[in-house]
Amino acid sequence: MPTKLSEFGEFGLIKKLTEDITPIHSETIKGIGDDAAIIKKENNKLLAITSDLLVEGIHFDLTYTPLKHLGYKAVIVNLSDIYAMNATPKQITVNIALSSKFSYEAVSQIYEGIKLACKLYSVDLIGGDTSSSLTGLFISITAIGETTEDNVSYRNGAKENDLICVSGDLGGAYLGVQILEREKRIYKEAPEIQPQLEQYKYVVGRQLKPEARRDIIKQLNKIGIKPTAMIDISDGLSSELMHICSQSNVGCRIYEDKIPIHPETEKVAKELSIHSLTAALNGGEDYELLFTIPMNDYEKIKEITDISVIGHITHSSEGINLVNKQGHFIKLKAMGWSNFNE
Amino acid sequence: MPTKLSEFGEFGLIKKLTEDITPIHSETIKGIGDDAAIIKKENNKLLAITSDLLVEGIHFDLTYTPLKHLGYKAVIVNLSDIYAMNATPKQITVNIALSSKFSYEAVSQIYEGIKLACKLYSVDLIGGDTSSSLTGLFISITAIGETTEDNVSYRNGAKENDLICVSGDLGGAYLGVQILEREKRIYKEAPEIQPQLEQYKYVVGRQLKPEARRDIIKQLNKIGIKPTAMIDISDGLSSELMHICSQSNVGCRIYEDKIPIHPETEKVAKELSIHSLTAALNGGEDYELLFTIPMNDYEKIKEITDISVIGHITHSSEGINLVNKQGHFIKLKAMGWSNFNE
Repeated sequence: MPTKLSEFGEFGLIKKLTEDITPIHSETIKGIGDDAAIIKKENNKLLAITSDLLVEGIHFDLTYTPLKHLGYKAVIVNLSDIYAMNATPKQITVNIALSSKFSYEAVSQIYEGIKLACKLYSVDLIGGDTSSSLTGLFISITAIGETTEDNVSYRNGAKENDLICVSGDLGGAYLGVQILEREKRIYKEAPEIQPQLEQYKYVVGRQLKPEARRDIIKQLNKIGIKPTAMIDISDGLSSELMHICSQSNVGCRIYEDKIPIHPETEKVAKELSIHSLTAALNGGEDYELLFTIPMNDYEKIKEITDISVIGHITHSSEGINLVNKQGHFIKLKAMGWSNFNE
Repeated sequence: MPTKLSEFGEFGLIKKLTEDITPIHSETIKGIGDDAAIIKKENNKLLAITSDLLVEGIHFDLTYTPLKHLGYKAVIVNLSDIYAMNATPKQITVNIALSSKFSYEAVSQIYEGIKLACKLYSVDLIGGDTSSSLTGLFISITAIGETTEDNVSYRNGAKENDLICVSGDLGGAYLGVQILEREKRIYKEAPEIQPQLEQYKYVVGRQLKPEARRDIIKQLNKIGIKPTAMIDISDGLSSELMHICSQSNVGCRIYEDKIPIHPETEKVAKELSIHSLTAALNGGEDYELLFTIPMNDYEKIKEITDISVIGHITHSSEGINLVNKQGHFIKLKAMGWSNFNE
């Protein structure tokens, strides 16, 4: 009996396919299993390499995704992985496959978004491939960044009593896509009704035009904080916390009332009858940074405005816990997004 | 009026989309326009980065492509680009999108091929993404290699009077796909007839299981020859010669009777009523190396058995010429494969 792919989560599949791989080259310090791979170069310099794929109908819906935004986001999701290693992205390559229904002008808009992201984040577009596809649009980007042995942050360095920090706010991108999907359904049923998106600008913007938190990395470096572990939030806070805790062999405790949720996100959540905490924990695509720092850095971290301390690292035996507003401990499960559905 | 993509060739489209890009970082020495991009590192070390995309229905047909071979080839086409910079591949990342019709066992076979190529060519698989797609299989691979400022070979260094060399033999991969397509048609019309491929083993092997010419690069380094220009033959000899000549601002003269064509390729060409020279010039996918060397290296190059000297570089005003067996000069045109057909 062939095994269906839906029996694996995304991580389960990659893990199983690559579990027998051990690096041949001693300079391959970190292979599969972090935000980016790390390769050792001369004089303590390290390269960070990451590669991500966006697939039409799976990761984006062209009915409501402007092509320029799509190109921009395709770059951002990769840069976010490089920053999550405490590294600076320098170059990208872009592979695009698209069907003949796309015009030159359409492809050109995707490239406009790609080039804009490159410009704003000081990244060189150094190569890639453009091919036709029978159906659908595929964008595969690889980003290359630089860091040093002193600065690199893996997922596996969190220590007991470290503080857990998160940049920005969470759950917005998930609610954004819910709004866009709702407007799409309404439009399908009644094309004469124009989508009303003005009042959902914040959450829709979080979904369609995310940014990578270069500013946070710069500020951390400036005030001399090196995260003991770091990851970007692409699959939801729960899932990322589990990566850090399992790779660092620790547990954690986070507090519901410390989780940063934007007032606009709260408002939309209420309207859609979705618990905003659920969106924050399991929504994904916020591209914020989740990281741990030594407790001694607490005074320093307060200097950075857009960071919330949401909890702390515990012994692994405690597991991964959310302390809710009533003070009850709730065990967290990874509900991170898997795209292999049946 | 939107412009159809079929109005551009593959190179035309990428060129147009990226013509306004100038690298921001001084270490980005070579961006788009060679087999791989080149990034400067410390102590004269250079990184070579290339990225290629294989799309179902465009680059391969799963009716006759074994999945393990496909995985293997997807790696090889990238390694070939790294060798063509006179560099050594060290790491790859792999992004795969595939529909739910694929089982775990099927994906696993693709990975078997990928891992086999990695093992044989001493390359580390360091990361990547696996995603579902609505339809079709997409494999996007990025390869990272190393070379030095003294060794790197670009496309633009060919000089007048340099000798033009090619490794192995040409045209086989193109005839291989013709045979496979023919057997597919026969099978469709009469499924009871088993495909007879035994007698076409050579050309079919060239198509389904190409190798990258690491051996040639090693031998060139060993005998102290540094190509003045180099490119791998993925789109056909004509097209690659044009890249070298236009980027080096030179012309060339190649001789029909010097172009290496395997006896098996000749035999199949005859059977299919295809001129074997056409297959060699315009067929593509042979993944041999085309390179130029100073005339003084003529005695040295003869030490390498699997290399043919097929002509020499001329002044640009002469254009790109094939001297046929009758001694007539024929201007070559790029007939290289474009995948944006209507």
